[in-house]
Amino acid sequence: MSKLIKRTLVLGFILSAIAFSASAEDGSRLWLRFNKTTTDANLFSSIVTSTKSLPYKEFQSAWTELKGKELASITIVENGSLLIGTAKDKQIRNLGLQKELVALGNEGYMIKSVSVNGKKATVVASLTDKGLLYGVFHLLRIVQMNEFSDQLNIKEKPSYALRILNHWDNLDGTVERGYSGHSIWNWEELPAVLSPRYQEYARANASIGINATVLNNVNASPKILSDEYLQKVKAIAGVLRPYNMRVFLSINFSSPKELGGLPTSDPLDVKVQQWWKDKANEIYKLIPDFGGFLVKANSEGLPGPMDYGRTHVDGANMLADALKPHGGIVMWRAFVYEPGDDRAKLAYKEFINFDGKFKDNVMIQVKNGPIDFQPREPFSPLFGAMKKTPLMPELQITQEYLGHSNHLVFLSPMWEEFLKADTYCKGQGTTIAKVTDGRVFGNKLSAIAGVANIGKDVNWTGHHFAQANWYAFGRLAWNNQMTSEQIADEWIKMTFTSPLEVGTPVATNSMSTVDFQLSIKNMMLASHQTAVDYMMPLGLHHIFAWTHHYGPEPWCDVAGARPDWLPKYYHNADAKGVGFDRTTSGSNAVGQYASPLKEQFNDPATCPDAYILWFHHLAWDYKMKSGRTLWDEMCYTYDKGVNDVRGFQKIWDKAEPFIDAQRFAEVQSKLRIQARDAVWWKDACLLYFQTFSKRPIPYDIERPVHNLEDLKKIKLNMGHHN
Amino acid sequence: MSKLIKRTLVLGFILSAIAFSASAEDGSRLWLRFNKTTTDANLFSSIVTSTKSLPYKEFQSAWTELKGKELASITIVENGSLLIGTAKDKQIRNLGLQKELVALGNEGYMIKSVSVNGKKATVVASLTDKGLLYGVFHLLRIVQMNEFSDQLNIKEKPSYALRILNHWDNLDGTVERGYSGHSIWNWEELPAVLSPRYQEYARANASIGINATVLNNVNASPKILSDEYLQKVKAIAGVLRPYNMRVFLSINFSSPKELGGLPTSDPLDVKVQQWWKDKANEIYKLIPDFGGFLVKANSEGLPGPMDYGRTHVDGANMLADALKPHGGIVMWRAFVYEPGDDRAKLAYKEFINFDGKFKDNVMIQVKNGPIDFQPREPFSPLFGAMKKTPLMPELQITQEYLGHSNHLVFLSPMWEEFLKADTYCKGQGTTIAKVTDGRVFGNKLSAIAGVANIGKDVNWTGHHFAQANWYAFGRLAWNNQMTSEQIADEWIKMTFTSPLEVGTPVATNSMSTVDFQLSIKNMMLASHQTAVDYMMPLGLHHIFAWTHHYGPEPWCDVAGARPDWLPKYYHNADAKGVGFDRTTSGSNAVGQYASPLKEQFNDPATCPDAYILWFHHLAWDYKMKSGRTLWDEMCYTYDKGVNDVRGFQKIWDKAEPFIDAQRFAEVQSKLRIQARDAVWWKDACLLYFQTFSKRPIPYDIERPVHNLEDLKKIKLNMGHHN
Repeated sequence: MSKLIKRTLVLGFILSAIAFSASAEDGSRLWLRFNKTTTDANLFSSIVTSTKSLPYKEFQSAWTELKGKELASITIVENGSLLIGTAKDKQIRNLGLQKELVALGNEGYMIKSVSVNGKKATVVASLTDKGLLYGVFHLLRIVQMNEFSDQLNIKEKPSYALRILNHWDNLDGTVERGYSGHSIWNWEELPAVLSPRYQEYARANASIGINATVLNNVNASPKILSDEYLQKVKAIAGVLRPYNMRVFLSINFSSPKELGGLPTSDPLDVKVQQWWKDKANEIYKLIPDFGGFLVKANSEGLPGPMDYGRTHVDGANMLADALKPHGGIVMWRAFVYEPGDDRAKLAYKEFINFDGKFKDNVMIQVKNGPIDFQPREPFSPLFGAMKKTPLMPELQITQEYLGHSNHLVFLSPMWEEFLKADTYCKGQGTTIAKVTDGRVFGNKLSAIAGVANIGKDVNWTGHHFAQANWYAFGRLAWNNQMTSEQIADEWIKMTFTSPLEVGTPVATNSMSTVDFQLSIKNMMLASHQTAVDYMMPLGLHHIFAWTHHYGPEPWCDVAGARPDWLPKYYHNADAKGVGFDRTTSGSNAVGQYASPLKEQFNDPATCPDAYILWFHHLAWDYKMKSGRTLWDEMCYTYDKGVNDVRGFQKIWDKAEPFIDAQRFAEVQSKLRIQARDAVWWKDACLLYFQTFSKRPIPYDIERPVHNLEDLKKIKLNMGHHN
Repeated sequence: MSKLIKRTLVLGFILSAIAFSASAEDGSRLWLRFNKTTTDANLFSSIVTSTKSLPYKEFQSAWTELKGKELASITIVENGSLLIGTAKDKQIRNLGLQKELVALGNEGYMIKSVSVNGKKATVVASLTDKGLLYGVFHLLRIVQMNEFSDQLNIKEKPSYALRILNHWDNLDGTVERGYSGHSIWNWEELPAVLSPRYQEYARANASIGINATVLNNVNASPKILSDEYLQKVKAIAGVLRPYNMRVFLSINFSSPKELGGLPTSDPLDVKVQQWWKDKANEIYKLIPDFGGFLVKANSEGLPGPMDYGRTHVDGANMLADALKPHGGIVMWRAFVYEPGDDRAKLAYKEFINFDGKFKDNVMIQVKNGPIDFQPREPFSPLFGAMKKTPLMPELQITQEYLGHSNHLVFLSPMWEEFLKADTYCKGQGTTIAKVTDGRVFGNKLSAIAGVANIGKDVNWTGHHFAQANWYAFGRLAWNNQMTSEQIADEWIKMTFTSPLEVGTPVATNSMSTVDFQLSIKNMMLASHQTAVDYMMPLGLHHIFAWTHHYGPEPWCDVAGARPDWLPKYYHNADAKGVGFDRTTSGSNAVGQYASPLKEQFNDPATCPDAYILWFHHLAWDYKMKSGRTLWDEMCYTYDKGVNDVRGFQKIWDKAEPFIDAQRFAEVQSKLRIQARDAVWWKDACLLYFQTFSKRPIPYDIERPVHNLEDLKKIKLNMGHHN
């Protein structure tokens, strides 16, 4: 057979194989794929368990997908048996693991290779069914990743007690900053109709350790607390409960007035306090394990205690009192920025003096950066500074500022950078992770929140790779010491299984499965920096288009708009240079950080390039660490961003034989958009800043393909709700 | 002074210099720039002449622009004198040049360094004022190019007797395939108002040797021959005459019927013949030097002799008889292609048997290629094959198929390739140039036509660089042995003079004026191949969008359309391969070429890659001369086209210090469009052909950034009239 004919046959085989699996691969199964061909390994001979609870069912369901039938249940351990159970189950008790299990807590678990009466077996055990569920999903992940062995010795417990999604979902079905279809909550048909998606949602979250969710937008309608809606909430809670997910609600601080008909919502008003207590009682009667309230108050026009001359402490504590008897908590957001001082300083200024004044069931929810989910921010200086108040990080999974669901941006590296950032609040090594999970301050409440990117789209998240951000949030919330590389590795192996489905993968480009996984992983790990590079490198921030935050609009000027909603407020470009002077000679935002960070940030020579224009207004000719001028560095960085996206396209196209046709084509199409958008960003920002710098774009860089005047005319018809 | 400050000052100087000259540099002056700073050389001390005719006036006008005042006129030659005159002028007669001047003919001239009574002088002389005008413009070009010396010895006479523009201008002011505004002819206000542009037009044409023009579209309205319109034509002729430009008209073959009220336009009908004779008499009474008729007959729906069962010979000869007494000629177009056989063969099939049957004042006007002004075509096989009939090449200056006035495409290399193509009609070396200019067949009539790209735009041609195509047509018509490099060199030095205007050029990028001119020249010389590469390389042709011919539409299918108006007719892409089989096993279009060309074209191994898909339908895996498969070669070639345009952008941007701000920005903007369009072409063609080839685009090539389905939706709102 000639080489030519051989290649043609191989190609034909790939094409027909892809065609075969195409219809099934719409992304709806997320990372929970237990295809028959996931593994050929001889894993378990039988299952030994005295429980038929959800963890067992999940295991058998996956096993059935894998092997075509359930794993045979027996009572006496044999070689290859799988033992599943909680500490109270007999076969687990007999193993003498009680003490270890207690140490792992209600949600922790162990997966261990054991010998029972001379028979080699594997045990998955936990103190409770909660931990067992997580243990089973961990075991299944091991199977999916082909990493099963008879040498397992895994003990896990979560970094944060509360691992919670924030849905910015409105009661009318729209989602603020949602890019994957409308809200998954069908409020209209609830509580009568329970979409099967609710359970799939709960299962997906459980598989990655997420144990709570805020159902509605922080820009909350008072209506969510009405009797009618609480019935709907109860119905959802009922579906989520078996998967160890508790329900929380965002509340509107004016609810007593708006919903209760009181003349005020003053938190020091006794009737208001009583109204909240009554409301809490009502909620807990319906939902005994209700989690509590998330509150956005006196922020971006929303009502709050300051409307009545009270403080955030007054407001939060009042709600805390109402929830306390039921074990509920208040998550009070620190996202406040009334015009005045440098916006980056405002949350700190507002909250630092309240440290220690909140009730013990109040947490302050703080966005990772001091502004607002920009492509890259230094961490909020509140972390480490508020020592007596449990702070919970708020991360944004939905890509409001990172290309919506069009751009492939794996957010894990950004979150990892944040969690590993050293606050120096108690000396070196007091990272955000340790500051927030209890290791530094010993706080009993610990939590981390992620603004969900989930919608009604078949693939849940709009972009297939945006699933990885949901996945990564869950994994980091479970274990804030994980690396992004580990997370990407897991997600890729679990999510792109189709070559195994269709037999040995055949690469026209002689790529192996390992090469494929590695190239996709490298792409994911690079993708956040790439987006920063083509959007706003070197600490630039908030130069997005008005309202929808999709494309570039560094020139944006809206008559009558708040200055701190306009890009110029942030970039300050002028003939001399660009950037926000937050040094001691400027707004002194650096002063909110602990030493030696404040000194490091204060000096452009020691300030990391990644944040340099965040903290400094530098001359166009400022000599960067690379030896280039600031202007040239900016040009080369934007250009690198463009070329890196083009590199992603190459990686993806080359991976075609390893991906089912549908997901391949959909991601390919999104990458094409991203490549065009990257050029758009580069051209818009360089041509705009060039009107100040008056310097040529270095001549070895690919030239702009747009005219600034044309780019200024682009007005996308997008709102900030989908 | 530090390096930094120095650079800043230099930059400031450039910017203010550019600002100073900005308003004047709108491109309206074409290549006729005699700026005060064009040259510092000490050229002439005085002028000696006995004529005050137009050539003298043109010289003094340019000299005044150059030096601020006229050159002093004296009667006795002194050192540095310039002598200007015709053979009958005394001071020229005295030089004894009579015999040489006679040999150069009425339009020829000499420019010579001479010694008169021991005084060194320069003489510009000709037999007539016609030649003298061309001589003066040549002298001025030497001045503009800074190439004056005291060793001049130039003798020139034109390659073609008739060097003619074809305006496809309609009487309603629109221009077919016009991309530089509406027609320069203001028919409405003629003959009362004579736009100053008519004279500027005549002068520009005279400066490059063009001596005739067809005022109206070949798709001609009978109205052009009405009494009313002939008065308008007379008025234009009056303006053009001093510049040695004769006027021709396109006529509608049905004019006797449509305009004259006859029942027929049958060329053998005596009344019809008489009508044309009367019409000719009428025209010549108004315009004694009227040139004759251009005729598109029985082509694309236009009337012609075949409507009456007559032939092209009958039609052409009838008109020739009417014009003969006045010295007029008929230019009969061979652009005919009634459906049936391979379109590329039809003109040849129709006309070859008429060879020798036309009257001696008939020329057959043949487009350079056998189809229709495609980005690249092999030459029409009629050239060399019709041995007894004078053929005149029709070139298209307006960029119907080459990016309109958005793409920088210097057409001279395409025309040079055509003119230097060997027909082998009388053995090796019988090039098109020699076949058409009389050197091979000794024909007395010789002519070359160019479809004009001129419109009402301030810069005449829409794109500043499209002026170079007008310029190149004129220069090649004058001297069909010129190289494109010579032509580009002249045009650049004459057209981009602003750095000299503002003093010594200062390059922030340390580029010298010579480097600048060289880089622009290289860009121009590469630009045609580049356009071919990103539009339709390897002999692909006619895969343009329907009607407007701007963008790619290889998939184009219009219900009920003539098959030979659809791209599929030409590319024939299928699962096996792509291309038009015109070999002996196919349509046998190769059979219309002389040996050894027909054999060379017939065999893909010897057929030049540039024409390979013109003549062959080749398998996607066909091994090209490069060693690549056809599919890969196609991919790399499209990609090269894109990258080359990006290279043009770099060249242009780098040239910024040498160009006035207005033309710099306008060309920069057009290049950006071209860069986007190149990507559009590449993506559209590769993604479309990939649906047949089923092969991956080689992975080291930049990936498409569009989806085929989106590209298919693009419908530009363009007609084929502006």
